[in-house]
Amino acid sequence: MQGERNSGFDVLYHNMKHGQISTKELAEFVRERAAIEENYSKSMSKLSKMASGSSQLGTFAPMWDIFRISSDKLALCHLELARKLNDLIRDISKYGDEQVKVHRKTKEEVTGTLEVVQMMQVASGQLHKAKECYYNRCLEQERLRKEAAAQKDVEKADNKARKAAESFSSSVEKFNRVGEEFERKMNESAQKFQNIEECHLRQMKVLIKSYSHSIENTHVQIGQVHEEFKQNVENTGTDTLVRRFAEQKGTGRERPGTDMEHIIFQSNMGVSHNGCIMELGVLEKVGILNLKG
Amino acid sequence: MQGERNSGFDVLYHNMKHGQISTKELAEFVRERAAIEENYSKSMSKLSKMASGSSQLGTFAPMWDIFRISSDKLALCHLELARKLNDLIRDISKYGDEQVKVHRKTKEEVTGTLEVVQMMQVASGQLHKAKECYYNRCLEQERLRKEAAAQKDVEKADNKARKAAESFSSSVEKFNRVGEEFERKMNESAQKFQNIEECHLRQMKVLIKSYSHSIENTHVQIGQVHEEFKQNVENTGTDTLVRRFAEQKGTGRERPGTDMEHIIFQSNMGVSHNGCIMELGVLEKVGILNLKG
Repeated sequence: MQGERNSGFDVLYHNMKHGQISTKELAEFVRERAAIEENYSKSMSKLSKMASGSSQLGTFAPMWDIFRISSDKLALCHLELARKLNDLIRDISKYGDEQVKVHRKTKEEVTGTLEVVQMMQVASGQLHKAKECYYNRCLEQERLRKEAAAQKDVEKADNKARKAAESFSSSVEKFNRVGEEFERKMNESAQKFQNIEECHLRQMKVLIKSYSHSIENTHVQIGQVHEEFKQNVENTGTDTLVRRFAEQKGTGRERPGTDMEHIIFQSNMGVSHNGCIMELGVLEKVGILNLKG
Repeated sequence: MQGERNSGFDVLYHNMKHGQISTKELAEFVRERAAIEENYSKSMSKLSKMASGSSQLGTFAPMWDIFRISSDKLALCHLELARKLNDLIRDISKYGDEQVKVHRKTKEEVTGTLEVVQMMQVASGQLHKAKECYYNRCLEQERLRKEAAAQKDVEKADNKARKAAESFSSSVEKFNRVGEEFERKMNESAQKFQNIEECHLRQMKVLIKSYSHSIENTHVQIGQVHEEFKQNVENTGTDTLVRRFAEQKGTGRERPGTDMEHIIFQSNMGVSHNGCIMELGVLEKVGILNLKG
């Protein structure tokens, strides 16, 4: 309930305890993120295997190397991020341990404040009671006077009212005295709680910045992998692929017919089937029509 | 085997067929990547739920909103990428269908070339046989001459050698004739195959560029999400968190004691426990010590 005398202390004390929860939750969050990244990395390795398992035949085949390399690098980037996040979890846990120690020490230090809070509750209760009593006595006093009651009864009422006033006065005094102590101690504890809270938030922000920094670094690396992929695709021209294929699959390197000239010794028998398979100057290299047996 | 007469045509024909495989494999690769991105997106949504399920108590609580929002946005980025990649798979499949049609048409167009390749095989075999025969007849002719054999035998051998020379000559003539046809047809088919191959590679590169473009776009978006996260963390100062907490959890907004002044009507009883909980000017707002019941 708001405004209850001891709620301020309770709120601050429990908030300190919530600090431990937030540290644990941050660790859990980062652990989950690390697991996600590790999983993504594994998927990328699988994708890389898919690329390297692709057909090695045909002109397109060399492109799969570009996919494979890129996927492997992406897998590495995300694995590296998972590794960094796991390091961060260790830092968070370490901080969590320190936090528990600080809270334990603080709990001892604020025991006096808790006591004075309870004293304040008592003093406040007494004060309210005394006030009520004094108020009722005054009403009684007034009623008797108005009713012109017997002098004896009026004096009795006056006496009771005076005593109630004295009790009220001493309750106020006690309340003020306890109040001063309460104020001093609460001031001290509140300052302590506030310092702990500020330290906690600062530390949490340091940890979050480390998280953010790791993710940012990985993001830059991933960007480089994409750029590399794009460049590699760009650099692997259609002509290059056709040439590579011709070099690999070509059935001979010499112009068809040249060898036949050794075999066929009748002059007019020269066979010259000019290699005509591929354009782009690869004609002679390909030699698909070579007649060498 | 290299240099076999028909291998050039076979290599080119089969390479065309491999083009269909590479299209299918690209679709499978992109499908796998889309699945990975979708999965990552789901994991990020889970992470977002983890953030929103974190403790709402304590000064750190509002930070979880930053984590939640960031995770949600990352989930969206990756889901959007998965969606784009699924669109791309449709484009690849559509191209694959067109490719099958082109290959079917080409297969019909190159039937003539396949026939002439077979004719070349036959002609070449005949040519080699005729050459061997002519060579052996010449040796026999020479042997008989050296041994000064009977004129009848020599004439017989001369006769055989002449016939073998004629047969050889006509084989060469046939080989040349078929060779010319072969050259013409192969030239035509090779050009066809090369065009198909170049078109295929160009089309594959267009599809890969679309893949690369989608990934790049997502990468930029993810970078913005990270930047936003960093800014949000930066902008949420320790003091803001403490103030927010005080506003939310404060047990009152007025300086403790003010209300007591109404209750306690004896002049010197004013209670003034100055709210001392939080520094940073939040003192009065917090009012944790407020005595209002």
